[in-house]
Amino acid sequence: MVTLSEKILGAQAGTYVDRKVDKAFCHDGTGIQAKIIYDAIGAPGLANPDAVYVIYDHIAPANNSQTAELQAELRTFAEKNGAHFREIGSGICHQVMAEGLVHPGEIVIGADSHSCTLGALGAFATGVGASDMAGIWVSGETWLRVPDSIGLHLSGSLKAGVEWKDVALSYVAELGMDGGTYAALEFTGEAAPSVPMEGRLTLCNMAVEAGAKTGLFYADTETRRYLAGYSVPCHMQIPENPVYVRECDLDLSSLEPVCAVPHRVDTIQPVSQLAGIALDQVFIGTCTNGRFEDLARAARILKGHRVKVRTIVVPASERDYLQAITTGVAADLVKAGCIMGPPGCGPCLGAHMGVLGEGEVALSTANRNFKNRMGVGASYYLCSPSTAAASALAGEIADPREVL
Amino acid sequence: MVTLSEKILGAQAGTYVDRKVDKAFCHDGTGIQAKIIYDAIGAPGLANPDAVYVIYDHIAPANNSQTAELQAELRTFAEKNGAHFREIGSGICHQVMAEGLVHPGEIVIGADSHSCTLGALGAFATGVGASDMAGIWVSGETWLRVPDSIGLHLSGSLKAGVEWKDVALSYVAELGMDGGTYAALEFTGEAAPSVPMEGRLTLCNMAVEAGAKTGLFYADTETRRYLAGYSVPCHMQIPENPVYVRECDLDLSSLEPVCAVPHRVDTIQPVSQLAGIALDQVFIGTCTNGRFEDLARAARILKGHRVKVRTIVVPASERDYLQAITTGVAADLVKAGCIMGPPGCGPCLGAHMGVLGEGEVALSTANRNFKNRMGVGASYYLCSPSTAAASALAGEIADPREVL
Repeated sequence: MVTLSEKILGAQAGTYVDRKVDKAFCHDGTGIQAKIIYDAIGAPGLANPDAVYVIYDHIAPANNSQTAELQAELRTFAEKNGAHFREIGSGICHQVMAEGLVHPGEIVIGADSHSCTLGALGAFATGVGASDMAGIWVSGETWLRVPDSIGLHLSGSLKAGVEWKDVALSYVAELGMDGGTYAALEFTGEAAPSVPMEGRLTLCNMAVEAGAKTGLFYADTETRRYLAGYSVPCHMQIPENPVYVRECDLDLSSLEPVCAVPHRVDTIQPVSQLAGIALDQVFIGTCTNGRFEDLARAARILKGHRVKVRTIVVPASERDYLQAITTGVAADLVKAGCIMGPPGCGPCLGAHMGVLGEGEVALSTANRNFKNRMGVGASYYLCSPSTAAASALAGEIADPREVL
Repeated sequence: MVTLSEKILGAQAGTYVDRKVDKAFCHDGTGIQAKIIYDAIGAPGLANPDAVYVIYDHIAPANNSQTAELQAELRTFAEKNGAHFREIGSGICHQVMAEGLVHPGEIVIGADSHSCTLGALGAFATGVGASDMAGIWVSGETWLRVPDSIGLHLSGSLKAGVEWKDVALSYVAELGMDGGTYAALEFTGEAAPSVPMEGRLTLCNMAVEAGAKTGLFYADTETRRYLAGYSVPCHMQIPENPVYVRECDLDLSSLEPVCAVPHRVDTIQPVSQLAGIALDQVFIGTCTNGRFEDLARAARILKGHRVKVRTIVVPASERDYLQAITTGVAADLVKAGCIMGPPGCGPCLGAHMGVLGEGEVALSTANRNFKNRMGVGASYYLCSPSTAAASALAGEIADPREVL
């Protein structure tokens, strides 16, 4: 009668625990803040350097001299203290960690709110602020209240043109942006084993958009298949009659392509009802939907056509980018007029590389459409890669089922 | 007894002429300034919209909301007035214009100092400021003083590891940064016909670094071969015993790999004497050296290895990028750890996408190493793509001849 979170954290929901952190990662944005606090503590060194990862993704490459200087400082710190350092262009921290570094059953803490992404691998993965990360650097541990769990039971299968992102937006809308506050979302049910790893990463990525502490899939044969690609062995996780504080049924076959409309992630509308809204920019990428499979889905629609609106594509990692290049997906995207940026967060957080102007309207495969995030005075809609691609061709929001 | 400039402009050196402009182009930086002046003039429309090109390359994609808003304004202006518009990701204006748009014998004016690049095609091509561009938009014409010409006579052939960029840096050093002031540099001599178009573009690109009005190659069989790739017919240009105010002999076989050292383009040193200088960043790209051939040269050295310093590669155009993807060059670069940005100027002008911090040292294939240009308080060296690639592998300035 334990949930996966209880199992991994070794205590009942509601208990406060101190735990060793198996993997602690940060990016250029939070890492520099953590370093300031770490320096103030005056620690003799990292407690467990081999568990520490510093991954440059947020403003990559640097947008001005100040950013470059801060990045130089943190780069030197990481290298001097024996932490793992991943240079600009390696990819988004969550995706880099998902590529064989995070293993089922681990406690994974990232200094970024979307660290819950890694629950897709059967790890307990959650985000903290920079000061907590500094504490982990110093002690190798962190404290946690073991969360209650919400069961999200998946059944049925996706119809053509409906994607994992549509499922993610749909469950966030179902729960509401505070409906999962501090809970762990366990994705289970008869359809869970058939969700491919890329879909699990998308689903767990957005757990925090419902306020959840994390999202998790039990490690199963799909996890084993995926990790085998990185030569990582995989211990399966069997549900032990978990007790949930709330349960939701998600019939995948009942879902359709949706968009989260400005300016809330939990407010969705069917794409079919939004069709025709004029767009200034389309963005395909991020830790939610910048993986190779996402790019390939977009390319399938874009191939042989030309976009009608500026369309930025940013692979989630070097690995995803390389796969897009070697499989012809990148060629299809560039031939279609897409602007491909280097692996990283791209314009998602409004820091550079495709920021929107006042009054502009965009469609994005990211996970947040908060007001002003991707550009002051702009508004944008969140959607799946296929909806983004179909809309890029139309120059306005369009239903991917009409071009598939 | 006329130079190519006199022939094209139809008047003797020293004469002031008014001439119809065959191609007038600007980028996002100068275009918005030209529009302000154009609006102030209150013209009824573009005199010759078909000659006007607006090409987004300088801050592409936008780095903040203000940039996005200015770009939106100019984009609308271009589309409303029937000008040719090239979206972010199309490439650097000079390279885009070189891809079949500029023809031998034309008068080409760009609102960018490196517009002289297009003299490689046997056009009279030069840069103007935004107000002159606004005047061209209104009238379709511009005024010019027909320049004197300097003859740069090429002989011999390049040794292995020496590239057209080394030739460009060497002639700029020979003339000095004001040695060609307002002159047209005519590249002639027995070796001129054997210079491939990409080399001509590199050589003409840097004419302005010697203060020259432009650089020119006579249209010949190489020009015809190159333009045939764009289905553009090519009328050959035969030298008519031109009289030069100065002549320089450049024996290609005497040259070696060089760098322009901080902070002057005309101050060069052999790479062999600079070897070992530690680097924080390497940049391969720009209108000088971001063409497919440049990327391929870098990839030849990088293939199968991994860079030791962050290395940004930015193709000069969508076409160059696509060719790099489909030929395996892009895969080799990404596998080697290069960060590939979308076609455009990239970090060259220090506006975004790889700006340097104070005290950082970089190596770049660009055309200018002016103090603070690519980052406040940084210093950088200019070199060829092969020198950049060899140095990226070493993490310090390195001679490409040692790894070829």
